[in-house]
Amino acid sequence: MTKVTVWNEYLHEKESETVAAVYPKGIHTCIKDFLTSDEVSVRTATLDMPACGLSEEILADTDVLIWWGHKGHERVPDEIVSRVQNAVLQGMGLIVLHSGHKSKIFMKLMGTPCDLLWRDNDRERVWCVNPAHPIAKGIPPYFELEHEEMYGEHFTIPTPDDVVFVGWFAGGEVFRSGCTFTRGMGKIFYFQPGHEEYPTYKNPFVQQIIKNAVEWAKPTAHLEKLACTHLEKPTESKN
Amino acid sequence: MTKVTVWNEYLHEKESETVAAVYPKGIHTCIKDFLTSDEVSVRTATLDMPACGLSEEILADTDVLIWWGHKGHERVPDEIVSRVQNAVLQGMGLIVLHSGHKSKIFMKLMGTPCDLLWRDNDRERVWCVNPAHPIAKGIPPYFELEHEEMYGEHFTIPTPDDVVFVGWFAGGEVFRSGCTFTRGMGKIFYFQPGHEEYPTYKNPFVQQIIKNAVEWAKPTAHLEKLACTHLEKPTESKN
Amino acid sequence: MTKVTVWNEYLHEKESETVAAVYPKGIHTCIKDFLTSDEVSVRTATLDMPACGLSEEILADTDVLIWWGHKGHERVPDEIVSRVQNAVLQGMGLIVLHSGHKSKIFMKLMGTPCDLLWRDNDRERVWCVNPAHPIAKGIPPYFELEHEEMYGEHFTIPTPDDVVFVGWFAGGEVFRSGCTFTRGMGKIFYFQPGHEEYPTYKNPFVQQIIKNAVEWAKPTAHLEKLACTHLEKPTESKN
Amino acid sequence: MTKVTVWNEYLHEKESETVAAVYPKGIHTCIKDFLTSDEVSVRTATLDMPACGLSEEILADTDVLIWWGHKGHERVPDEIVSRVQNAVLQGMGLIVLHSGHKSKIFMKLMGTPCDLLWRDNDRERVWCVNPAHPIAKGIPPYFELEHEEMYGEHFTIPTPDDVVFVGWFAGGEVFRSGCTFTRGMGKIFYFQPGHEEYPTYKNPFVQQIIKNAVEWAKPTAHLEKLACTHLEKPTESKN
Repeated sequence: MTKVTVWNEYLHEKESETVAAVYPKGIHTCIKDFLTSDEVSVRTATLDMPACGLSEEILADTDVLIWWGHKGHERVPDEIVSRVQNAVLQGMGLIVLHSGHKSKIFMKLMGTPCDLLWRDNDRERVWCVNPAHPIAKGIPPYFELEHEEMYGEHFTIPTPDDVVFVGWFAGGEVFRSGCTFTRGMGKIFYFQPGHEEYPTYKNPFVQQIIKNAVEWAKPTAHLEKLACTHLEKPTESKN
Repeated sequence: MTKVTVWNEYLHEKESETVAAVYPKGIHTCIKDFLTSDEVSVRTATLDMPACGLSEEILADTDVLIWWGHKGHERVPDEIVSRVQNAVLQGMGLIVLHSGHKSKIFMKLMGTPCDLLWRDNDRERVWCVNPAHPIAKGIPPYFELEHEEMYGEHFTIPTPDDVVFVGWFAGGEVFRSGCTFTRGMGKIFYFQPGHEEYPTYKNPFVQQIIKNAVEWAKPTAHLEKLACTHLEKPTESKN
Repeated sequence: MTKVTVWNEYLHEKESETVAAVYPKGIHTCIKDFLTSDEVSVRTATLDMPACGLSEEILADTDVLIWWGHKGHERVPDEIVSRVQNAVLQGMGLIVLHSGHKSKIFMKLMGTPCDLLWRDNDRERVWCVNPAHPIAKGIPPYFELEHEEMYGEHFTIPTPDDVVFVGWFAGGEVFRSGCTFTRGMGKIFYFQPGHEEYPTYKNPFVQQIIKNAVEWAKPTAHLEKLACTHLEKPTESKN
Repeated sequence: MTKVTVWNEYLHEKESETVAAVYPKGIHTCIKDFLTSDEVSVRTATLDMPACGLSEEILADTDVLIWWGHKGHERVPDEIVSRVQNAVLQGMGLIVLHSGHKSKIFMKLMGTPCDLLWRDNDRERVWCVNPAHPIAKGIPPYFELEHEEMYGEHFTIPTPDDVVFVGWFAGGEVFRSGCTFTRGMGKIFYFQPGHEEYPTYKNPFVQQIIKNAVEWAKPTAHLEKLACTHLEKPTESKN
C-alpha cells in the first residue's frame, strides 16, 4: 500500500465562487478521490490545520507528498518547510503541482527561484518528449487542456534529471511542463498544469500522470541520518 | 580580462603552525598567485573583512568566485550567503573547493546537505571520466595526490550536470571529485581536493583544473532580475 | 509476469575447465536460476542456436533481454544485431553484462566504441553513488568482489542517464560500473562485474542488482513503427 | 584559428529554382560566408567531390564539421561515415543541421533512428530554455522564423546532455530544436532550423547560434587510438 498525503493551501476554494464551483470540496479532495485505490491510501492536509497538517508523525507515515499552493506560500512556517525538506532527503517522494513552483519547499530543494513567464487563460497542448519514462505510461503523444494558465520559459530550475512533458501554448510560448529531480533519497516531480479556476484535475490524462508519478516517486531507499560520517578506519582495513 | 575573487575563511592558516607552514600567506594567496595572468585578474576576500569582503560592489565586479571554507561556515552571515546566491543566479561563476561542500552557499544552491564519508590522511588518485569536458583540458588520464583527506560516497548532491573526475582512495573509497552544476545563469564547479594541511594547491594538475574551471565558469549571460514576469499579451499578439 | 531472455555466447564454459568449474551449466543457466520467480519467467538463448536463439518471435515475447558475450562478439550476425536494436528501440529492456561492453549490439546502441582499460584478476569494491535509483534497492553503501577483472576509465560511452555504481579496484583504478541509458522506448543497463572465471553471478548483491534491473527495464511503452511521420494537417487544425 | 569544414550534399540548390533563388551558391557557401572571420577559417565539401570531400587529410585538419544533408543521405558511402564517426570520437566537433537528423552519421552516433513528426511550411518561434549555455550567448529569450518546416516530438534521440532551444510551431507542435551530445572526445550539436526553401541561414540569430556552436564544439582533447587498453601492471604498482 502506497501512502499519499495531498497538501493544499485550500484558500482559493473558500474565497472565490468561481473556484468553489470547480472544486467544491477543494483541490485536495478532488486529487484524493481519483488517487485512492486498493494500492493507494490517501490523506489530506491543509494550511489551516495545526502544523499545516504536516507533523513529524504524518510525514513519517507518508510515501509521497503532493503539494498545491499559491497565495499562501509565505504562510507556511519555515520550520515546516525544513521538516518536509528533511523528509524528502530521507526518501519521501514529492509531487509539486502548478503554482507550487514558487512554494518555499520547491525553491529550497531546487536552490533557485523557479521563476517563469505567466499569463492567464490560454489553451495548452501537453506533448510527451520522453515516452519511455514511467510517468508517461498510458499517455498519448499529446493531450489538450482547453483552459490553462500559461507558464513560459525561461523557467529558472536546475537541469532536471528528465524532462517528460513540454507544454505548447496557443499564445505562443513553450514550457518544460513535467520535470523530474532527485534530492537525497527523494524523487521529485514538478507538473505545470492545474490552475485553480479550471477543471484540470478532472482531465483523465492529468489524473493518469499524477497516478504514475506517485508510483514512480514512492521510496525505494531511506536515509536514516542527515550528516557527514567519519570513518575511523579505511574501508580496506580488515580489523 | 576575467575577474576572479578568491574567498577564504583564512582561519586554519592563522591558528595552526602545520597549515601556516604549507600556506604561509593563506590558501587564497596561493590560489591568487597561480591564477593571475594577462587574461585573469584576481582579488582575495576573507571572513575577517567587512561583509566578509563580499559587498554588492565586489560581487558585481566578479566573474568567478572561488570558495574555500571549513571551520568558519557558520560565521558567514545569511545575508552574505543570499547575496552570493543571487550573484550566482544572475550569472557569476562559482568554484567550491574541498570542505566548502558544507558551506552555507553550496548547500543553499544544491538544496541538499552535501554530506559524505571522510577520513584524514589518505592517498588519492584523481581519474578523469569526462576528458572531453573543458575543465579536463590538459589533464592526463589520472594524477596522484600523495596526501589528501578522504571524501567518500554517498555524496548527497543533486545529479550533477557532468561528473568530470572520480577520486580513488588507497583506503578503499571512491568519490565524485569534480562535478558541474548550473543554477540560474551561474555555472558551478565543485572540486574535492584541497585539505589545508597538504600542498594540494601547489600541484600543477590541480592548478590547471582550477584555471580551466575559471575559464569554463565565467558568465556568458546575465539575468537582470530574479522574479516571475507577467506577460500582458500573448507572444502571438502583434499589437 | 515479466518475460526475460538470457543470452549467453556460451563458449568459455565449453572450452575452459576453469570456467566450467564455476558455471557448469553456463552463465545463462546460473542467471536464469536466480531470476526465475512467480513474477519473472526466464528463457535462455545461445550463439549455437538457430538465429542465435533470437528470432523475431522470441524477441516479440521478451520484456527484458540480458546479454553476456566476449570472444564470440564477431560471430553474431549483423542481421540479428539490427533485430535486437529494433526491439530495444520499440521498448524491450536490455541488460548488458561485463565484457558485453564490446558486443555489436551495445556499441551500435551507444554509437561509440565503449573502450576501457582492463587487467585480469583484481579485487573490486562496488560503491553505490545513486542509492535513490530503483536498481540500487536493497544494496548496501558498498559490497566487495574478492576476484574480478579490472575495468578502468576512461570508458568511451555517451553520458549515461544515471550512474548508479562506481567500482574501486585494489590495483588503483575506478570505473562507472553501473550505468543506465534510454534508446527509443528501451531502457538499457550496463553492469560491469561478471568475469567468466569468477563466481560473480553467485554473489547475492550482484543477483539483487540484476533482479532490480529487470524490474526497472521492463517496458512501460511500445513504439509500433520506426519511421518519421508526416502530419497532413497542423495539430491545430480542427477538420 | 578554428578550422571549420561545411559539408552540404548540394543537391536541392542545383535541382530546384526555388531553392537556388534562396541559396544561389549553395547552403554551404552561405554558411561559410557568415562564419569566416579572423578566428575562423572555413572550407566547404560536397557530395559530388571525391570521397565526398572528406578525405582523412581533410578531417585531420578540421576542428568542427558542419553537416547539411537531406535527399542524398543514402549516397554517402558507409566508409566515409565511419571515417567521420572516428574523427568525432577522436575529438572533432560536429554540428548537424535540420534534415541531417536522418543522415547516416547522426543516426550512427546516436544509436537511434532520430525519427520525428514533420509538416512543411509552418511558422516557428525558437525559445531558449538554457540561457546559461555557451551556445545561447547573445540570443534573446526567443526569436521567430516566419517560414520553417515543422519538426515535432517525439524525436527518437538519446537523452541529450543539454537541451538549449525548444521550438514552438504555429500549427501546434513543439520540438527540442537545439540539443548537445558528447561522443568520445567529440562534442555534437543538433540544430533543427534550416529548411532549404527558406532563408533560415540568413537569420542573424541562427547565424549567431552556429557561430557559438563552432566555438563550443572545437576540440579540447584528442584521443589518439580507438581501442581497449591492457594494463600490464596495476596502477598502484611502482615498478
